[in-house]
Amino acid sequence: MTSFAALHVPGRPLLLPNVWEFGFAASLAAAGYPAVGTTSLGVSAAAGLADGAPASRAATVALARTLAPLDLLVSVDIADGFSTDPAAVADLVAELAEAGAVGVNLEDSRADGTLVPLDVQLTLLQTVRERVPGIFLNARTDTQWLGAGPVSETITRARMYADVGADGVFVPGLAEPADVTALVEAVEVPVNLLYLPGKVTLSGLASLGVARVSLGSTPYRVSLAAALATVDAVQNDAELPLAPPSYGNVVALLPEHSS
Amino acid sequence: MTSFAALHVPGRPLLLPNVWEFGFAASLAAAGYPAVGTTSLGVSAAAGLADGAPASRAATVALARTLAPLDLLVSVDIADGFSTDPAAVADLVAELAEAGAVGVNLEDSRADGTLVPLDVQLTLLQTVRERVPGIFLNARTDTQWLGAGPVSETITRARMYADVGADGVFVPGLAEPADVTALVEAVEVPVNLLYLPGKVTLSGLASLGVARVSLGSTPYRVSLAAALATVDAVQNDAELPLAPPSYGNVVALLPEHSS
Repeated sequence: MTSFAALHVPGRPLLLPNVWEFGFAASLAAAGYPAVGTTSLGVSAAAGLADGAPASRAATVALARTLAPLDLLVSVDIADGFSTDPAAVADLVAELAEAGAVGVNLEDSRADGTLVPLDVQLTLLQTVRERVPGIFLNARTDTQWLGAGPVSETITRARMYADVGADGVFVPGLAEPADVTALVEAVEVPVNLLYLPGKVTLSGLASLGVARVSLGSTPYRVSLAAALATVDAVQNDAELPLAPPSYGNVVALLPEHSS
Repeated sequence: MTSFAALHVPGRPLLLPNVWEFGFAASLAAAGYPAVGTTSLGVSAAAGLADGAPASRAATVALARTLAPLDLLVSVDIADGFSTDPAAVADLVAELAEAGAVGVNLEDSRADGTLVPLDVQLTLLQTVRERVPGIFLNARTDTQWLGAGPVSETITRARMYADVGADGVFVPGLAEPADVTALVEAVEVPVNLLYLPGKVTLSGLASLGVARVSLGSTPYRVSLAAALATVDAVQNDAELPLAPPSYGNVVALLPEHSS
């Protein structure tokens, strides 16, 4: 078991902050967080691309390489793998593992909002599993996120993803306690849910046996709000919305200057 | 006069938010801000590099290209030009102009915290000016920022930078009203100051005749604080520090998916 897998404890979930750039990740490492995910929305939006657009592949790999020097376990959100070719997706996962990533999230929906047929997704997961046996393969199903079916369909997919070698299953959108309990009881791998502001709490998800809670794009979206609120505050001679770290504190997170 | 130059009105300063990635810039464009700068700290920190490190050159150019599709005038912070060779710096400015940037900030300090000799900086500014006549060349002097001399030295440098063709002068660190007034009266080009939280206000700088107020790394640093506070809030079952835009609102800032 990798040290990353060991952090997935049902009932005492790993809180996984999702990052899109180095400074925030370095801040988390300095604050003692052991692991981070990446956010496809943040990575794509920072690069001026549609969320999960195939063109985001390069920025995703570049981010993994940028984060590698940090004392953090890194799991990379690769959306649908940025390709419909299982071999190309497996190549990407191998490239990320080589760059130091300890995990990936691979989802069963396309950027156009359609669900990938079950047999196609199973082939994809098997291909990745065989190619990169050591990486924590977190299989995401978007059946709930897309409103594409009942919870029973979600559970069926989650069980089958685990059967072909997924190390964990991720079901964004699931929040009802009875549904969460049903999923946790039905699958033998750690269950990962998405933090939804106002709908769930970390302690609530913990009590239901969840093993990992991802923040998804929430930190990126809050940071956007904060940046914009900062500009508006200055425009209005008002107080900043939050006290920032000093310039020197941020510089201290970065590599030394090489002369 | 370019439309960007026309925004520099003494007494009614251009508030220039400094960005490091697309999503924030797109948010500013959507909010009606006409122009942005970039922040060398934000660009370097996002890429995992020391502030202004020569390796930040590529990320700086990439950001300018990423921002080009937005309905924003973009001025790019190039620190010391990422090179001690004036021709190489002029090449960079030409590349940025070609990418759509309407202005650059070029500073007279090195990343190691030393001030560039006056004659060397004048040669650099002249070289850039001749190579790219159309770009708004904002000459930054770090005499105050580094505590490297009296205000009279700052004024001397600002005047000489304007004499060799700078379109504006930028003096981060200057905040005392008497000093600001002395600078504004001594130079014939627009004066740009840095917003320093708690030390100056936009209306105060306006009343002193300043023509542009930059936010520097403050939005980046506030956004870092907000992202970290978000994670801490979830860890503690607490409210988010700020209400984020929805996922859909962020997606709406991005290009459409190409299929």
